[in-house]
Amino acid sequence: MSEKQPLSDIEIAQNSELLPIQQIAEKLGLTEEDLEYYGKYKAKISYEKIKELQSNKDGKLILVTSINPTPAGEGKSTVTVGLGDALTKLGKKTVIALREPSLGPTMGIKGGATGGGRAQVLPMEDINLHFTGDLHAITTANNALAALLDNHIHHGNTLNIDQRRVVWKRAVDLNDRALRQVIVGLGGPGQGVPREDGFDITVASEIMAVLCLATDLEDLKRRLSRMVVAHDIDKKPVTVRDLGVQGALALLLKDALKPNLVQTIEHTPAIIHGGPFANIAHGCNSIMATKTAAKMGDFVVTESGFGADLGAEKFLHIKARNSGIQPDAVVIVATIRALKMHGGVPKNELTHENIMALEKGLENLKKHTETITKFGLPFVVAINKFSADTDSEISLLKKWCGKHDIPVALTEVWEKGGEGGVGLAEKVLQEIEANNGQFKYLYDISSPLDEKIRTIVREVYGGKDVEFSVKAMKQLKEFEELGWGALPVCMAKTQYSLSDDPSKLGRPENFIIHVRELKPKLGAGFIVALTGEMMTMPGLPKQPAANRMDVSDQGRAVGLF
Amino acid sequence: MSEKQPLSDIEIAQNSELLPIQQIAEKLGLTEEDLEYYGKYKAKISYEKIKELQSNKDGKLILVTSINPTPAGEGKSTVTVGLGDALTKLGKKTVIALREPSLGPTMGIKGGATGGGRAQVLPMEDINLHFTGDLHAITTANNALAALLDNHIHHGNTLNIDQRRVVWKRAVDLNDRALRQVIVGLGGPGQGVPREDGFDITVASEIMAVLCLATDLEDLKRRLSRMVVAHDIDKKPVTVRDLGVQGALALLLKDALKPNLVQTIEHTPAIIHGGPFANIAHGCNSIMATKTAAKMGDFVVTESGFGADLGAEKFLHIKARNSGIQPDAVVIVATIRALKMHGGVPKNELTHENIMALEKGLENLKKHTETITKFGLPFVVAINKFSADTDSEISLLKKWCGKHDIPVALTEVWEKGGEGGVGLAEKVLQEIEANNGQFKYLYDISSPLDEKIRTIVREVYGGKDVEFSVKAMKQLKEFEELGWGALPVCMAKTQYSLSDDPSKLGRPENFIIHVRELKPKLGAGFIVALTGEMMTMPGLPKQPAANRMDVSDQGRAVGLF
Repeated sequence: MSEKQPLSDIEIAQNSELLPIQQIAEKLGLTEEDLEYYGKYKAKISYEKIKELQSNKDGKLILVTSINPTPAGEGKSTVTVGLGDALTKLGKKTVIALREPSLGPTMGIKGGATGGGRAQVLPMEDINLHFTGDLHAITTANNALAALLDNHIHHGNTLNIDQRRVVWKRAVDLNDRALRQVIVGLGGPGQGVPREDGFDITVASEIMAVLCLATDLEDLKRRLSRMVVAHDIDKKPVTVRDLGVQGALALLLKDALKPNLVQTIEHTPAIIHGGPFANIAHGCNSIMATKTAAKMGDFVVTESGFGADLGAEKFLHIKARNSGIQPDAVVIVATIRALKMHGGVPKNELTHENIMALEKGLENLKKHTETITKFGLPFVVAINKFSADTDSEISLLKKWCGKHDIPVALTEVWEKGGEGGVGLAEKVLQEIEANNGQFKYLYDISSPLDEKIRTIVREVYGGKDVEFSVKAMKQLKEFEELGWGALPVCMAKTQYSLSDDPSKLGRPENFIIHVRELKPKLGAGFIVALTGEMMTMPGLPKQPAANRMDVSDQGRAVGLF
Repeated sequence: MSEKQPLSDIEIAQNSELLPIQQIAEKLGLTEEDLEYYGKYKAKISYEKIKELQSNKDGKLILVTSINPTPAGEGKSTVTVGLGDALTKLGKKTVIALREPSLGPTMGIKGGATGGGRAQVLPMEDINLHFTGDLHAITTANNALAALLDNHIHHGNTLNIDQRRVVWKRAVDLNDRALRQVIVGLGGPGQGVPREDGFDITVASEIMAVLCLATDLEDLKRRLSRMVVAHDIDKKPVTVRDLGVQGALALLLKDALKPNLVQTIEHTPAIIHGGPFANIAHGCNSIMATKTAAKMGDFVVTESGFGADLGAEKFLHIKARNSGIQPDAVVIVATIRALKMHGGVPKNELTHENIMALEKGLENLKKHTETITKFGLPFVVAINKFSADTDSEISLLKKWCGKHDIPVALTEVWEKGGEGGVGLAEKVLQEIEANNGQFKYLYDISSPLDEKIRTIVREVYGGKDVEFSVKAMKQLKEFEELGWGALPVCMAKTQYSLSDDPSKLGRPENFIIHVRELKPKLGAGFIVALTGEMMTMPGLPKQPAANRMDVSDQGRAVGLF
């Protein structure tokens, strides 16, 4: 990744020539009949085709994850795209599977979710704005449920919902701090029942997690109907099924559930679909996307959110378990810049060589390689190259990897596209071919919730123990009694540290993880364990990216990244 | 319109065979290059094509309006679609231009906005759900503006916005009474500044009106930048331009501004685009839609919201003035059922013959024919036939029309499609050919706001005078001083009566209209005059339509109308 590159991501994207999406689809054996177009360069894949594909063998799955993210940037999406292009260059029939971006961050902070430089998915303008409307459909379904719930309370409340115990929040796909805590229903009896409420960003909605974990429309409806929306005056959970609106919600989501096909700058097919938060949800693209990709490609490159302690752990314990597909190899992305930050260097000093900090920071990477090994999976470390990386730093890194017997490849996909990722692709193919792994879950699904949490803390985070709050202890007991104990756990933890303290970079040890509260997400099918305050509605910065945005007379985006 | 028809609207729609949208486009001389597909049966028309079409001559424009609406139903959209199909049957190159429906009413009350019976636009399931995402884009732009505004206040408020005087509301495209009056920004300094706020339904957002009145992207941006969002501590208006985010909003709307092409059951091309409220906004589809339709078709059939006192008046004084296109003929839709309601018959007695009530109710129709004549436009009255209409009632109606020299046609488009509207189409063609009209505005745009309001009340409503509240009087003076006096007026009045009292059916006389408050909509380019309480956020009924909705395994809508 070079900082000298004169063109911005959007300029590179707008200067790239796209092929009509049917030509991309043809490479995968899809005909016009199998596609529902959204403009010339985007298409949804039909349910009929997806069903027909079920009899195909699964391709090899490569999961891209990273060290704990830092403000220095790691470039996980960029490597995912670049690796896909590199595999294509090597003659492999490859499909990339990514998450779709949220408009909130787009309007707030410069920085896209569609890769960067020569390793991007296109049309990036569309993908970063409304795309095929999936997130809008989720927002609408989320808010229709809220409206139907408040309407039920207003018109007699036959379910005896305790309006102080409504847990279903409203959503917008924007960063809007003013909506975090609100009071609704003001203005007298005609406007409903006043109560405290709040808005989450759409990607934090349970419906996003449900859409990403559903295997078909029937499963989607089943999951929707299980979602807990409130508690009644006897504190019993009230679900969507009790309200009887799962059909309407599924109807609103009937097209959003279909995976979206696009292409990279180098015309590798990419499926971009679903994008739940990686802190309070599982942070992976949809099962529909990854499975469909695996049925069409000999190789699938996909990513999970944040670092391996959050995204990869959840991919393996939640998404893999729900879908039955497991990675054949893992790529752990890091940059020398980010490793130096983990070694204690502040952001404004990253351009200076610092061997000692790099050595210290490598301990973070080390922990994640150990975790992936525990899951029984082979891996390759991808170092995303920056122009400020010095020869001594690179040489230290290579020596370190040699010493620990860690397969490593430098990549230059940002500057060179697929060509810059061929070295990485070859190493990944070697690992897959060697077939030395034997995937296993780190916990038994039938073990109690607290045990599952303890296993994750010890095995994945490298912590000493877990401390449950009084509330969490009570919930543990209650949830086991309600029969929810056999669900997997979805940890909500800061992404910046292996611990629950975002300031502890590198590889902290002997730490305790504090579980404050549990949240049942029965539709998604997991129990969220909250450690510390999780932000489910971000705010905008003082100078939001929106201030620089514009559109030309011809309808082209200006100032979007 | 027959009540014996065994099939529901959605069943008729789902049993109809659609042509691929490119075949519909071909009839209008559009090629694949000119289209941006949304699935197989919907497409947006490109800006390039729209520009290229500008040199074409305008086709003849037929405006469909109605008597004051009643719970009996008039079927204005159905007649609009049926008339379009009938003209096509007569060999005329016809394009229909309609509004796009809002999801709020769809989830609330059974009854679609896409016509009915054999006179429908397709695919009705898509059009009534997310369609091409235009309303979602408007919701998003509306709420992005609100978030950016609150963010400005939170980060230092350099514009000195008085948070008690924020007029920009948030929006959802749903019926959600609990959001009418809310408090946002609670939770301490980190969540912004607490203030009173409220949500409108998206179709009531000024951005919807802006989108419908904009003639191109540049005009859209200009209009967005003029919108008043708040007042500062000196009570001066603060606009979007002051916040500097018109570019970002226009970017969010860049695709939503492109008109959507679909087809009727009989494959007549239809453009469905934009749908502002007809009470607090102007209630017509977009200028982009109607103008594009007129550049492609020899005949365009379009409709305006509610009765001729609201929709047609606004079409003629606001939309026609902004676009430079005027109707060549008007169709006024009525049913014998609805006329009997205007004559005093309650809804559950409408199936009984009632000659006296019909005669009395005809006065409502009479007033609207007089209004259209004042505008200098030829018209035809369309009586949408129901099976319960008796021979005596029909014969009275015909005699009455003969006596008043009113051209009338009975239509059966609900049951028979275009075939059932051929009589109407022939009469309309005769009126256009006779070319006896000479369109004129009823008020001079440069006259003061109160004079414009008085003219509408006397000439269009048939009222005696206008009474302005103290607040409205103050605003009249203030708005003239601010230079807003030369804008057209957009009346916000109940649709049920010519007066501002919804219980006064038929043709009330000697009434006074009470103007409570004015609202500047500088982006839309009109001043709203509020008479009584206008609902800008509807609620859901006790048994919402959503409760009956579902989706099949194959992704087909169930229970949607």
